[in-house]
Amino acid sequence: MNNNQKTPKESQVTMTELVLPNDTNTFNNLMGGRLLYLMDIASAICSQRHSNSVVVTASVDNVSFSEPIALGEVVTLKAKVTRAFNSSMEVFISVTAENIPEGKIKQSNSAFYTFVAIDEHGKPRPIPEVVPETVEEIELYKGALRRRQLRLVLAGRMKPNEAHELKSIFFDE
Amino acid sequence: MNNNQKTPKESQVTMTELVLPNDTNTFNNLMGGRLLYLMDIASAICSQRHSNSVVVTASVDNVSFSEPIALGEVVTLKAKVTRAFNSSMEVFISVTAENIPEGKIKQSNSAFYTFVAIDEHGKPRPIPEVVPETVEEIELYKGALRRRQLRLVLAGRMKPNEAHELKSIFFDE
Amino acid sequence: MNNNQKTPKESQVTMTELVLPNDTNTFNNLMGGRLLYLMDIASAICSQRHSNSVVVTASVDNVSFSEPIALGEVVTLKAKVTRAFNSSMEVFISVTAENIPEGKIKQSNSAFYTFVAIDEHGKPRPIPEVVPETVEEIELYKGALRRRQLRLVLAGRMKPNEAHELKSIFFDE
Amino acid sequence: MNNNQKTPKESQVTMTELVLPNDTNTFNNLMGGRLLYLMDIASAICSQRHSNSVVVTASVDNVSFSEPIALGEVVTLKAKVTRAFNSSMEVFISVTAENIPEGKIKQSNSAFYTFVAIDEHGKPRPIPEVVPETVEEIELYKGALRRRQLRLVLAGRMKPNEAHELKSIFFDE
Amino acid sequence: MNNNQKTPKESQVTMTELVLPNDTNTFNNLMGGRLLYLMDIASAICSQRHSNSVVVTASVDNVSFSEPIALGEVVTLKAKVTRAFNSSMEVFISVTAENIPEGKIKQSNSAFYTFVAIDEHGKPRPIPEVVPETVEEIELYKGALRRRQLRLVLAGRMKPNEAHELKSIFFDE
Amino acid sequence: MNNNQKTPKESQVTMTELVLPNDTNTFNNLMGGRLLYLMDIASAICSQRHSNSVVVTASVDNVSFSEPIALGEVVTLKAKVTRAFNSSMEVFISVTAENIPEGKIKQSNSAFYTFVAIDEHGKPRPIPEVVPETVEEIELYKGALRRRQLRLVLAGRMKPNEAHELKSIFFDE
Repeated sequence: MNNNQKTPKESQVTMTELVLPNDTNTFNNLMGGRLLYLMDIASAICSQRHSNSVVVTASVDNVSFSEPIALGEVVTLKAKVTRAFNSSMEVFISVTAENIPEGKIKQSNSAFYTFVAIDEHGKPRPIPEVVPETVEEIELYKGALRRRQLRLVLAGRMKPNEAHELKSIFFDE
Repeated sequence: MNNNQKTPKESQVTMTELVLPNDTNTFNNLMGGRLLYLMDIASAICSQRHSNSVVVTASVDNVSFSEPIALGEVVTLKAKVTRAFNSSMEVFISVTAENIPEGKIKQSNSAFYTFVAIDEHGKPRPIPEVVPETVEEIELYKGALRRRQLRLVLAGRMKPNEAHELKSIFFDE
Repeated sequence: MNNNQKTPKESQVTMTELVLPNDTNTFNNLMGGRLLYLMDIASAICSQRHSNSVVVTASVDNVSFSEPIALGEVVTLKAKVTRAFNSSMEVFISVTAENIPEGKIKQSNSAFYTFVAIDEHGKPRPIPEVVPETVEEIELYKGALRRRQLRLVLAGRMKPNEAHELKSIFFDE
Repeated sequence: MNNNQKTPKESQVTMTELVLPNDTNTFNNLMGGRLLYLMDIASAICSQRHSNSVVVTASVDNVSFSEPIALGEVVTLKAKVTRAFNSSMEVFISVTAENIPEGKIKQSNSAFYTFVAIDEHGKPRPIPEVVPETVEEIELYKGALRRRQLRLVLAGRMKPNEAHELKSIFFDE
Repeated sequence: MNNNQKTPKESQVTMTELVLPNDTNTFNNLMGGRLLYLMDIASAICSQRHSNSVVVTASVDNVSFSEPIALGEVVTLKAKVTRAFNSSMEVFISVTAENIPEGKIKQSNSAFYTFVAIDEHGKPRPIPEVVPETVEEIELYKGALRRRQLRLVLAGRMKPNEAHELKSIFFDE
Repeated sequence: MNNNQKTPKESQVTMTELVLPNDTNTFNNLMGGRLLYLMDIASAICSQRHSNSVVVTASVDNVSFSEPIALGEVVTLKAKVTRAFNSSMEVFISVTAENIPEGKIKQSNSAFYTFVAIDEHGKPRPIPEVVPETVEEIELYKGALRRRQLRLVLAGRMKPNEAHELKSIFFDE
């Protein structure tokens, strides 16, 4: 593997946080906005590690929140880069919540964040390719292209009929 | 307009925030995660007002970040409900940033957040319909259906070929 | 209206905040100090907008706190400049609190904050005059002079017998 | 001294705080709102100690801010109860700022906060009288009556011509 | 391995944090107190996982701070339980700091925190034994006894001449 | 007393803090890590005052936590320099907690923190000697030497058999 290639493992991040009172709503559950904040920090560190540079958040994909996470529970965020595109890279974040005294762990949610690596003048700079290793990493790598097309279509920067990956996978079944 | 109908205007929220040091990255710009947090609070208050109940974040749609917002700038978030679906509602948030001493205002970004209204037992509860009034509100109301189908497809809760709105609007051009 | 005149409407600020756990005392009510902090931020942004410059807090007038505001309630602060004096300006802040699930809104309190506009060397700089438009704005504009005299008298920078506005309005009835 | 009497010394509070980045504006100086927050906490603890009960902020008197306090400086707040009125008490807070490496201490500002003691049902409860001891305490005790009349007049709860203390001291010189 | 035995691996914690402006001193370096706070959270989660119960901090051993950690650097804390004593357990925390754009990682410091597991009435409760697996874990397990004796001697709860482990290892060379 | 000598009284710090919701664990008690943070700030200010320079935390000695401190209680930290060693100084911090409505004060815990004074280039700089005055201060001054030897031995920077003070006082009884 050359200098311009890195595996997801080399930059992965594990972040463990305790849900504190100020993170919660009136039901004593973690607020969505606080989780979005933590996911941003975890995935920013991950993409910093992949690109060895400062990064800025470029976009956040559809994030779903399912089960509530309660005050005092422990949130674990795992972030892994999925694929690089010139100066931008997509990161997959998976969140679990533990109620330790009750011995329960639940899969909470997952999300995709995209970051752009920037140089000391604030300009985008090229980053290493991602070389996926595990089955899950390969799956995430493949899906990254259609998620990117979806982002570009939604942002009005790509015409739907040019989004071939998106079209074939989403609608031709 | 009956009891089960409300206009977006009745629940709209304006939130004005100063970018403080702890909100910024090493370039002294607002971190994406902090903005995601503020958008969640602004849109949660908006959907509380529409539904007259407590709400929880259900999902966040593709959010793009374009120009950086600097330390000391003023961020204004405007949140408006676009459409209701039984117990859930979609909120559109538009963000502008002002550098007051320089007299500059820039459109920063926009996003869609979805919330579920819940009753005192934590169960989903029915909410009023949204009756759009302005041209922009009618546009947002119409688009809400295909954004919802996109969310359901992406979450694996709707088959792509059943997402008629999404299909016709996105790909049949 | 010339360059050196602005209406209160041009710089008014609406700030909407959720009362979070760390903002509250042991009765789960918003602490006075936290509200003083929010009023300072809202009125600082307002006076930045009026003066198109950086500002520093110069003084805070008598602020009264009446009804408690509870955890989870929504606080709305509206700030409007009332009158300018060379390089300083007075801002009126009005605070309401909403308990959304109970459908209750209460007028909480109001205050006057004064700011000084400063240039890039930290020196006071001249600011536009305030041109009041509504009945309330005209009333606030008129009262600003006697509130200013009261501040100067209390700060020992004006002799009571020179505070004509203050004297006539307060004591000659 | 009986059970219903206490000296200011018995409840005085010294609070020492370091000015941290998030407390500052774009000039790296302590924001007025942050100081108002700290003064509220310091004086609330002081009035808790005097009344041996929970207290809520009732009002804040004219506060002036003079010299800026810089990032990294040390702020010392000293709070002392000046006088009690049934269930309310006035607290005097004096603030100094130290730049320790430069060996400079400056008197920053002072303020009067008023608190109401409340019982376990949230109702006002009687509190001990204040017995001033030093020359400064006696001066503050005497002035408390006219400051109270000023607050009541400004709040529209006392007619100006009934505010005898205020009148004689302020205007008959 | 029975129910009352657990390996360090089963409860280890990795916590990754970005150094934000408010965490820093006037040299833009991470404040010692902030790192002590993070080490407490990381090791508390670790001991919660080992004991499957709520825990409270009992003591902190000699912690040394060597090289400064700068604003924007990434701090990684790894916490591992070393040994259990009835209801208390010792946790070893190792901290590294990364300057990602410069590609530098440095070992920052390490510490030992001790926690007590408590039941729903706030009383100490028995916890599983620690079964060390790696060479490092065995070393930490062995040293835990003399560190415990040192803590007890320093707290005046054990006579120096009864601290056999401490004595033989520290002074009989 | 010459320029290179100072009494502990000249630099002592009193810090008073209210336990807020975000400082607490799920039992509504102050988290150990938060107290470690406050002790660091209080003792850093104390050693800044003694050395008239910026300081960095060098080490924290064995800290024990005994009785829990509850939400809404008032924490008072008193910090006093005990002894200086070239460019480093040891600070003793004593913590009390008050439940004011219940009229209870309890001695919570105490700790020793060590700081190094640094000049504008970040290099250690010489500091004044400590001249203890009271019986307690003399006791703390004397003990500082053996605590320093203990720190050096534990850090592997002094051989146990060279730690004469430590040896004679701890083990020859």
